[in-house]
Amino acid sequence: MSNITIEQMRFWSPEVRELEPYVPGEQPKIQNLLKLNTNENPYPPSPKVVEAVQKVLANDADVLRLYPDPDASELKHAIAKQQNVTVENVFVGNGSDEVLAHIFKAFFIQEQPLLYPDITYSFYPVYSQFFGVKTKILPLNENFEIVVDDYKQPNGGIIITNPNAPTSIALSLSAIEEILQANPDSVVVIDEAYVDFGAESAVSLVEKYENLVVCQTTSKSRSLAGLRVGFAIAQPHLIAALEAVKNSFNSYPMDRFAIAAAVASFEDQEYFEAQNAKVIASREKLVNQLNELGFKVLPSSANFIFASLPSKDAGELAAELRERGIIVRYFNKPRINQFLRITIGTDEQNQRLVDTLKNDILA
Amino acid sequence: MSNITIEQMRFWSPEVRELEPYVPGEQPKIQNLLKLNTNENPYPPSPKVVEAVQKVLANDADVLRLYPDPDASELKHAIAKQQNVTVENVFVGNGSDEVLAHIFKAFFIQEQPLLYPDITYSFYPVYSQFFGVKTKILPLNENFEIVVDDYKQPNGGIIITNPNAPTSIALSLSAIEEILQANPDSVVVIDEAYVDFGAESAVSLVEKYENLVVCQTTSKSRSLAGLRVGFAIAQPHLIAALEAVKNSFNSYPMDRFAIAAAVASFEDQEYFEAQNAKVIASREKLVNQLNELGFKVLPSSANFIFASLPSKDAGELAAELRERGIIVRYFNKPRINQFLRITIGTDEQNQRLVDTLKNDILA
Repeated sequence: MSNITIEQMRFWSPEVRELEPYVPGEQPKIQNLLKLNTNENPYPPSPKVVEAVQKVLANDADVLRLYPDPDASELKHAIAKQQNVTVENVFVGNGSDEVLAHIFKAFFIQEQPLLYPDITYSFYPVYSQFFGVKTKILPLNENFEIVVDDYKQPNGGIIITNPNAPTSIALSLSAIEEILQANPDSVVVIDEAYVDFGAESAVSLVEKYENLVVCQTTSKSRSLAGLRVGFAIAQPHLIAALEAVKNSFNSYPMDRFAIAAAVASFEDQEYFEAQNAKVIASREKLVNQLNELGFKVLPSSANFIFASLPSKDAGELAAELRERGIIVRYFNKPRINQFLRITIGTDEQNQRLVDTLKNDILA
Repeated sequence: MSNITIEQMRFWSPEVRELEPYVPGEQPKIQNLLKLNTNENPYPPSPKVVEAVQKVLANDADVLRLYPDPDASELKHAIAKQQNVTVENVFVGNGSDEVLAHIFKAFFIQEQPLLYPDITYSFYPVYSQFFGVKTKILPLNENFEIVVDDYKQPNGGIIITNPNAPTSIALSLSAIEEILQANPDSVVVIDEAYVDFGAESAVSLVEKYENLVVCQTTSKSRSLAGLRVGFAIAQPHLIAALEAVKNSFNSYPMDRFAIAAAVASFEDQEYFEAQNAKVIASREKLVNQLNELGFKVLPSSANFIFASLPSKDAGELAAELRERGIIVRYFNKPRINQFLRITIGTDEQNQRLVDTLKNDILA
């Protein structure tokens, strides 16, 4: 924005001049890079996804001339079935980022501040600024864990990523219940982008707690980051708020390909489970190898790990990996600037990382 | 929302309790209906669109596991080329509804009110409420035309649909220039959803006016309503505001299918022109036939017409058409409740409408 003059700035809404937008992980356009920086799945989506998209293309893709179902009800049904809830419990959006944006607008613009940890998804402060949400940021403890008792103070909402990112550490379902029970008048959002890689989902608590919203995505465990489909599960009175927000912003956020492909993914439970099991097994193997190299790795329930090497600066290590064609995510922020967030690849990809460290950088 | 108790409402952000969301035209799931109610194109998209999506599906759709380009720069380049502007002049979003939402946030939250006509796209008041934009609504004249001099009063922005909807009437480029010149400190948005069916685009004025934003969509003239791709053209200092807003809301709004398919459509100029010419020819034919049946049809530059029949109540007429499997859009609103908005179909579809009116309803 450095090229914009003060005079040109008069056209912007004053509040927009102050925005500090989110910066997503790099999507470099270089070939043969080992991309372990944005927590993508190393495996392709279910083969059923390809079939479903082919069906949309039938008859010269004539169906594309028609608007999609603004409610994406076929997708809501498929999610409801897979998640063992009713269709009235489901909200869908253009990636879980859009679902989260609508959540901030729908629930968190309150007198009291929203509570969330100091180390978590870095989009939360951006949404807060965007929608004018007051916040109170609560530090994780020295082991990078959430301190449950901190979430028992007056608030206008709570949002917790579980497992947390970039720490990879999961919170137990009983800890989440404790937070839900301590806050009967606030909406508690559990952002489960990574839950399918080993944490317990709070969806099983939705029927019991009228203040719970669970948010998930198809971008990680369903290999559909390229598709942009996220969803929320909650009781109908909370879903209604999300629908009111969505229908005041964009009536048709889900295109026909996204709906069809995501439906096919939710209908292929077997592929989904097999693929996640592979990622988890690769993670455990990688953690052991990194431990052997002297890394400290936080206990991960995600498709990434958060690791530090006491003998080497993390920023330098990230740069040296990059020179060798391996990209990991480095956050130059207080408390976590000696860690790397490394996405779990295939066993072969992880081995390349380990070999590069062992035989080259740390040799 | 009638099932939500006052107690449950405590979870909603107070401002969200007041929202009155947009209601899109019906997307009925009935077969063999003649659907002339949401201004969709009667022809399929370019055959190149099918090829482009097939390419995304190659190698088990492996590419779907990766996030799309958050900037959709390939698409921006294709649009820039087709529109004869530079890539720095282009913003893209998840349908022009999302682009418009970002426009309201980026430019219109000002001390002075946004100006727009009383009869226009009914999403404008919804966005205004959603973002807390002050508005001053200016009546069209008795011929449903915009009164240019009305747009020469203090304001915090102006938005005009051109051709207007649901009236179908176009504003001349010289009238738009007059408005731009009278408002050097306000952003003037020309929403050109229907411009390709016979109106003059204001894109040619972007280089000259630092306060102009032109918004278009692929949903009508490119037969891609099912895809959700819209865009805006403006000088870079205005595009930067839209990017700041977009990146504070959702970094990756365009999925890989949407990007690839839209690129293919913008690259097939020949198909685009031929298809629009067909729709325009069908419109002229339909207008003549309806005039013969006694309809008053406003002069249309769009892929729909706005028509009234002095001898019959428009609401009743819409209901009778519906009983016969033909859906048109009826707005039960002051000034326009004696009009029907009828989407231009193929010649065969339009003939079915005319025959139903002539031989059945008006016989």
